[in-house]
Amino acid sequence: MLKVPEHQVAGHIASDGKLGPLVDDEGRFFKPLQGDSRGEHESNFYESFTSNKKVPDHIHRYFPVYHGTQLVEASDGSGKLPHLVLDDVVSGYSNPSVMDVKIGSRTWYPDVSEGYFKKCIKKDRETTTVSLGFRVSGFKIFDHQESSFWRAEKKLVLGYNADGARLALRKFVSSNSPADSNLTPPNCAFASEVYGGSNGILVQLLELKDWFETQTLYHFNSCSILMIYENESILMKGGDDDDVQAARAQVKLVDFAHVLDGNGVIDHNFLGGLCSFIKFIKDILLSVDKRHETETSPLENGN
Amino acid sequence: MLKVPEHQVAGHIASDGKLGPLVDDEGRFFKPLQGDSRGEHESNFYESFTSNKKVPDHIHRYFPVYHGTQLVEASDGSGKLPHLVLDDVVSGYSNPSVMDVKIGSRTWYPDVSEGYFKKCIKKDRETTTVSLGFRVSGFKIFDHQESSFWRAEKKLVLGYNADGARLALRKFVSSNSPADSNLTPPNCAFASEVYGGSNGILVQLLELKDWFETQTLYHFNSCSILMIYENESILMKGGDDDDVQAARAQVKLVDFAHVLDGNGVIDHNFLGGLCSFIKFIKDILLSVDKRHETETSPLENGN
Repeated sequence: MLKVPEHQVAGHIASDGKLGPLVDDEGRFFKPLQGDSRGEHESNFYESFTSNKKVPDHIHRYFPVYHGTQLVEASDGSGKLPHLVLDDVVSGYSNPSVMDVKIGSRTWYPDVSEGYFKKCIKKDRETTTVSLGFRVSGFKIFDHQESSFWRAEKKLVLGYNADGARLALRKFVSSNSPADSNLTPPNCAFASEVYGGSNGILVQLLELKDWFETQTLYHFNSCSILMIYENESILMKGGDDDDVQAARAQVKLVDFAHVLDGNGVIDHNFLGGLCSFIKFIKDILLSVDKRHETETSPLENGN
Repeated sequence: MLKVPEHQVAGHIASDGKLGPLVDDEGRFFKPLQGDSRGEHESNFYESFTSNKKVPDHIHRYFPVYHGTQLVEASDGSGKLPHLVLDDVVSGYSNPSVMDVKIGSRTWYPDVSEGYFKKCIKKDRETTTVSLGFRVSGFKIFDHQESSFWRAEKKLVLGYNADGARLALRKFVSSNSPADSNLTPPNCAFASEVYGGSNGILVQLLELKDWFETQTLYHFNSCSILMIYENESILMKGGDDDDVQAARAQVKLVDFAHVLDGNGVIDHNFLGGLCSFIKFIKDILLSVDKRHETETSPLENGN
């Protein structure tokens, strides 16, 4: 039995009359091939990437595992349609907090139609894509006090400026009620476990950055980074350094309908945006470290 | 006595009736303040940068030394005008080969007028700015066979695609006659001395890259990297590894009329383009190394 994914935070949402991704109970994610060339483009990318020996093993793990395409009853009731079959990246989590961040200072690329160019650059200028080199596309946080998920409103997310994006990245790793964060500043209680640590988000982003500095295989236009973690397990086990694994923080790249051949040139658009995003994450970790120092050394407050 | 700089390869050229930079005999470069806000903007940048203690010393050396502004007889005959007074970065060279590379995948930035945006993005798409994250703006090479300078034609330079830019970067460090390079591939005879080595261009670019990964002080919109070296001294002293210094290869950043405050965000536009440019330089060094291996180990040719 296929159903609408519970943890999707951006992109087309499946429903009666609307085409969108579906999941099964066995951890598979079914993404309908978009009708124009984009669907085929994305499946071609997965075919190429999956079998590409030039991509190192430690990089493959940042991409959803691909199981080919399959005819599946579409969510919009239009009958059987071809779908990409992927591992559902959140299937192993109880209550995953998820954020989708579109990377790059532009979502268009050389040789697109004028119409597509104009549509993209308008949105790129209206959002933080141009100014920050990335934009938050959506996120949800498991609110343990309410025992339910809190979702950021799409309209607000698309209206973020630099401060809004920074606040969202802080809120994403905070334990105080996300709905109240206009009144209460996010406490970043999970920052060191989720963003920091030897298996945290930052380490994973830096590993990707290393690859992007030299890889000229693909240009990842309009791709997103998904950040996923489990906050309940951090709370249950306490916040010691040994519990880095508890958060099971992971980074996945998704959405490859606009990937192009690199033709010997690095993906400077993705790399620049990724470096900017990394700086935001580092700054949050630094602010948490400083606070921690202050808390544990009250005598040094005056320095 | 002020005169028209001999080694300028891009930007406005001074002449009777045309405003442009001038130099004196004591190694000073006089750049007229552009009439609109750009001139003031550039002098403001130099004032800020020169006194900015947050900029490390090893980074200051990549910028021309600034000596304030001065009223100077303008090149267009319009009388005395304010000029930036800078060290002339090529004054210590006999016959400098010079290349100007504008860094970034866009030359516009948030909050510019629609007119300026449209003018910039048109040129960015027509050149390699969008595709490569940089564009060659001009270059000249000292041709030791002809004992004269060879200049790339501006029209050809602005029409480069990725292959054209790659060829120009190879030609810039070659000793075979630059005018013939459509027939004879550039030999990259100076590549290892100019781009490589412990004081070469690549090492300098990597030092800049390190800084750009974290600096949030300035956004260097529409800035150029100048590469300067002396090829005669390499030829006179031979091509041994000890002679790295002979080329006196150096990188300088120039043109700061569009620099903005970083406001806590890294300059992802410059950084992405810089990383792409670095990859081009690395690829040339790699191709030269491979050729060298082949030449010195003929028995291993079959491997």
